[in-house]
Amino acid sequence: MQIISEGKSRQVLSTEVENEVLVEHKDQASAYNGIKRAIIPGKGVMVNKISSILYEALESAGVSTHFIRMVSDSQQLCRKVKPIKLEFIVRNYAAGDMTQRLNIETGTKLPTPVFEICYKDDQLDDPMINESYVTALRLASDDEMAIIHNKLILTNDVLTHLFARVGIVLVDFKVEFGRDEDGNLLMCDELSPDSCRLWDAISMDSLDRDRFRYDLGKVGEAYEDVLNRLNSLK
Amino acid sequence: MQIISEGKSRQVLSTEVENEVLVEHKDQASAYNGIKRAIIPGKGVMVNKISSILYEALESAGVSTHFIRMVSDSQQLCRKVKPIKLEFIVRNYAAGDMTQRLNIETGTKLPTPVFEICYKDDQLDDPMINESYVTALRLASDDEMAIIHNKLILTNDVLTHLFARVGIVLVDFKVEFGRDEDGNLLMCDELSPDSCRLWDAISMDSLDRDRFRYDLGKVGEAYEDVLNRLNSLK
Repeated sequence: MQIISEGKSRQVLSTEVENEVLVEHKDQASAYNGIKRAIIPGKGVMVNKISSILYEALESAGVSTHFIRMVSDSQQLCRKVKPIKLEFIVRNYAAGDMTQRLNIETGTKLPTPVFEICYKDDQLDDPMINESYVTALRLASDDEMAIIHNKLILTNDVLTHLFARVGIVLVDFKVEFGRDEDGNLLMCDELSPDSCRLWDAISMDSLDRDRFRYDLGKVGEAYEDVLNRLNSLK
Repeated sequence: MQIISEGKSRQVLSTEVENEVLVEHKDQASAYNGIKRAIIPGKGVMVNKISSILYEALESAGVSTHFIRMVSDSQQLCRKVKPIKLEFIVRNYAAGDMTQRLNIETGTKLPTPVFEICYKDDQLDDPMINESYVTALRLASDDEMAIIHNKLILTNDVLTHLFARVGIVLVDFKVEFGRDEDGNLLMCDELSPDSCRLWDAISMDSLDRDRFRYDLGKVGEAYEDVLNRLNSLK
């Protein structure tokens, strides 16, 4: 197996099947575009398991993802995709950089979800763009963007309801998409407390990467809590 | 007459008619959200005249604006509108902050125009948002945004062709919209080298506020050049 790509918290490895890859989730936590890093023991396993549960829920609801199946505690087999250089953020409550940029109090419920598109480029710090930029920079077609927008709406509905069943508020989340060998759009990257803001519905305590980002402590415990709650649904 | 509002480069005064205001263009130039300021003698008169010519061209093409008529060298009579707290930017070539944000060379022709929406708030430095933010923050209705988008496309076409006739490239421009007493959307603010990037089509020299912003000199001369070229069409 060869390393196809090595990210801050993930390694993608080749397999014997040309169009399939192995995604290995690492214990490394990172924030602020990789400036802040630490090892959270067990995080890779928890992210792998949570991501697998969420991808399965999305597949059942008709959102195609790159996920095929979990193959070990920290690894999942996925379809190989060519990533689109875009990040899609969906927000249900104000949190993170949005609160400073627009002077909105953290935790404000947004009357309708907010969708953001960022140009995925670490050196440029993933600047926010919009659909007219996507067209002008030839990053995706108008048809692809319409499909992605519908997938994001459906994903937000599915995940919001899934997390609500285990007493968690889905504040916001980030996903990426790639194209498989036939040009099909598949959700890729991962879905976990690394990429979703998840708050306990009663205490409104953070159960996600913000615990690492803002030094709130008990990072691993929060990820474990999310995993245990999702497992209780089985 | 009472001062209704006082901006960096404009004063809006009440008139005897309830739904009409007098817009007085000042000689003050400003950049970087008002941090850099200077008096450019004659700028108010030139902005008033250029803005009047451009608004008339847009009205003829079916884009409703707040402009009624010029009443003096530095003043125009306009319909009173309640401004929407949004700025709309249309870009045909890469220039300004976009070039750093996305690492695109200044002067790159964009294959399709880029449309940006900014939340108009000096204290927040007019952050870029998008249509989902406009909906969530209840700044304008979806129908209004669709109307505005069509007006922006038409405005870009009309102004691009008008400037091309006098050897000027319309690089980008910023406009605002307001609602009149019946809720009609009217383009407002002003349209001039203060709010449009205009380059000489042969030398690609800047004929706009960038001359002030970047200390290129001959600011007043550039505005006068634009006015003279537009006047040559009459």
